[in-house]
Amino acid sequence: MQKIVISLDAMGGINAPTSVIEAAFNVAKLNPRVHFLIFGLEDKVVSILQALSFPEERYDFIATKDVIQDRDKPLHAFKNGKESSMRKAIDAVKDGLAHACLSCGNTGALMVTAKMVLGTLPGVKRPAIAGAFPTYENKLIMLDMGANNECSESVIFQFALMGRCLAKVVLQIGNPSIAILNVGEEETKGRELEQKSYELLKSSGLNFIGYIEGHDIVRGKADVVVTDGFSGNLVLKASEGAINMFMTLLKEISKSSGFITLVGAFLLKRALKKKLTRIDPNVNNGAMFIGLDGIVIKSHGSATTFGVTNAISLAYELANRDINAQIIKEIKNLEERGIGLNFVEKIKQTSAKILGIPT
Amino acid sequence: MQKIVISLDAMGGINAPTSVIEAAFNVAKLNPRVHFLIFGLEDKVVSILQALSFPEERYDFIATKDVIQDRDKPLHAFKNGKESSMRKAIDAVKDGLAHACLSCGNTGALMVTAKMVLGTLPGVKRPAIAGAFPTYENKLIMLDMGANNECSESVIFQFALMGRCLAKVVLQIGNPSIAILNVGEEETKGRELEQKSYELLKSSGLNFIGYIEGHDIVRGKADVVVTDGFSGNLVLKASEGAINMFMTLLKEISKSSGFITLVGAFLLKRALKKKLTRIDPNVNNGAMFIGLDGIVIKSHGSATTFGVTNAISLAYELANRDINAQIIKEIKNLEERGIGLNFVEKIKQTSAKILGIPT
Repeated sequence: MQKIVISLDAMGGINAPTSVIEAAFNVAKLNPRVHFLIFGLEDKVVSILQALSFPEERYDFIATKDVIQDRDKPLHAFKNGKESSMRKAIDAVKDGLAHACLSCGNTGALMVTAKMVLGTLPGVKRPAIAGAFPTYENKLIMLDMGANNECSESVIFQFALMGRCLAKVVLQIGNPSIAILNVGEEETKGRELEQKSYELLKSSGLNFIGYIEGHDIVRGKADVVVTDGFSGNLVLKASEGAINMFMTLLKEISKSSGFITLVGAFLLKRALKKKLTRIDPNVNNGAMFIGLDGIVIKSHGSATTFGVTNAISLAYELANRDINAQIIKEIKNLEERGIGLNFVEKIKQTSAKILGIPT
Repeated sequence: MQKIVISLDAMGGINAPTSVIEAAFNVAKLNPRVHFLIFGLEDKVVSILQALSFPEERYDFIATKDVIQDRDKPLHAFKNGKESSMRKAIDAVKDGLAHACLSCGNTGALMVTAKMVLGTLPGVKRPAIAGAFPTYENKLIMLDMGANNECSESVIFQFALMGRCLAKVVLQIGNPSIAILNVGEEETKGRELEQKSYELLKSSGLNFIGYIEGHDIVRGKADVVVTDGFSGNLVLKASEGAINMFMTLLKEISKSSGFITLVGAFLLKRALKKKLTRIDPNVNNGAMFIGLDGIVIKSHGSATTFGVTNAISLAYELANRDINAQIIKEIKNLEERGIGLNFVEKIKQTSAKILGIPT
């Protein structure tokens, strides 16, 4: 039985290291194939491992001296964080000791460090943060959720290709539909970025369904939604904010409705909560830094043990299915159909040839 | 008793003209000071007016020949829509026949036509769409919600000044707090636009509280949130999408829970719905095109009669309080404190003088 090894930065996130180690413990209990490399401060981590009676054969604990803080600037974290739990967890992937790594810590620091340490897949211009967006009907993958504040249309096109691969592997959809996030559905809507990206995707022959608006994302009207990292992050957080508000509201009512003890109220609440599960950010927790030459999963900084458990399960799935090999294979197939990572450049060359412009 | 006259484009929006005329009827019943100029197609509008027994002394109906469609391009609508209900409703404000106008129709067409017909207030670079954002704790005003896809920092600064005025008048807050929408709270976060706008607002002496993230908007952590129209529109629609999803979910449960007829379930649902009212898009319906030399209110295209009623009430309030006179007065006060509409240009001139650069 081949093991899948996941390296964990135990120190990032507001509930860490407890949430991270409890989550690893949960996954280890359910899945005999998983093994963990746990990186963190000895005085914080060891007592938790002992309290859980975490079976010693299921993990290696590697004491690290340093922790990347949420306020650390990404480049500073990369240059000065060589002894940090985050860096060591990424190094483990680079060194072939782990199949995937996970952190709940500083997103910018994790992205920059992972990019510098692991590099990108061949031909990829910019790695992106790709994750399941909370929707009511279906699962939906969005990228970029925050790695690149500003992007060109050729970068957006690459996001579409990589998102397509991820949807095929994770959502098990044969020919995922792709949409561009925009402020309207009409072709004339949006900025130059949306309009140029639209033209590219329209001419690609991929399953491109046009623009999607913010309120249609939650309805899962596309399998993959592409956008720049600034817009993706805004929309994700706004949706999560609204969802969390409802969760709080439900809790408030439960607390204040002491006099409502009838069975009906209980059943109603249960029905509501069951439906809410589908869009709970902790259920959808875990985003992939797609386009890197190694699997790196970012969990929400505020994720609970339950949330981190889901993110670790995602890391396991992506490692087990060898997502990056799938991406490379898929892109090779697309290249053969003339829709590769350098589709934009090829279009430009073709246009230049037709127009007689030297390339 | 001075009348407040509101001109209505009866033809825009998916529930129009019924929703618009029913809403006007509702407002007229409650408020003896309001009078309506109703513009629309005779064969669609008259039967509704008759069916409601709308008292004839409370409105004038002006039959128009044309309707702006949702798919019409803004400039096309302005050039070719001179006989449309939308254009006539705006013309009524220009001609001094109405104190404010309202439409549920094509946002781009309404904005462009209103801007061309009414012009902007002195010194205003770009009008913006400003409205109440659905929040749980407090009311919050956001601008721009979709008029300008891309903005400069000096435009964002003007949005902050106008939003401040609106919050003072509508929310009755003495010194409203202002925040910039961003993907993080740290000073280093965001694009060049956010960082430059931050510097301007920080040095202005206004009640500037820094950056706000999408999930903190619903908590009402600021009174005024400024952003470009692309980002504002995305965030608004994403939040509304999540909220509408919950509304649908509640309805579904009510329908599918036929066996739960106990009093407790009823009470729980009522408690939940009561809380939801605060964030219902129909309750918060109605956005002002701020910065125009005339009051123009845009209602949601999908607003119900109840939603349009709220938007008409907002139009009435803003007309009754003479919002534009308030804005001009407030900006004059700020000018005297050195923080006027041309704050940015003044800073540049001062820097140039210090550096000895000819201006």
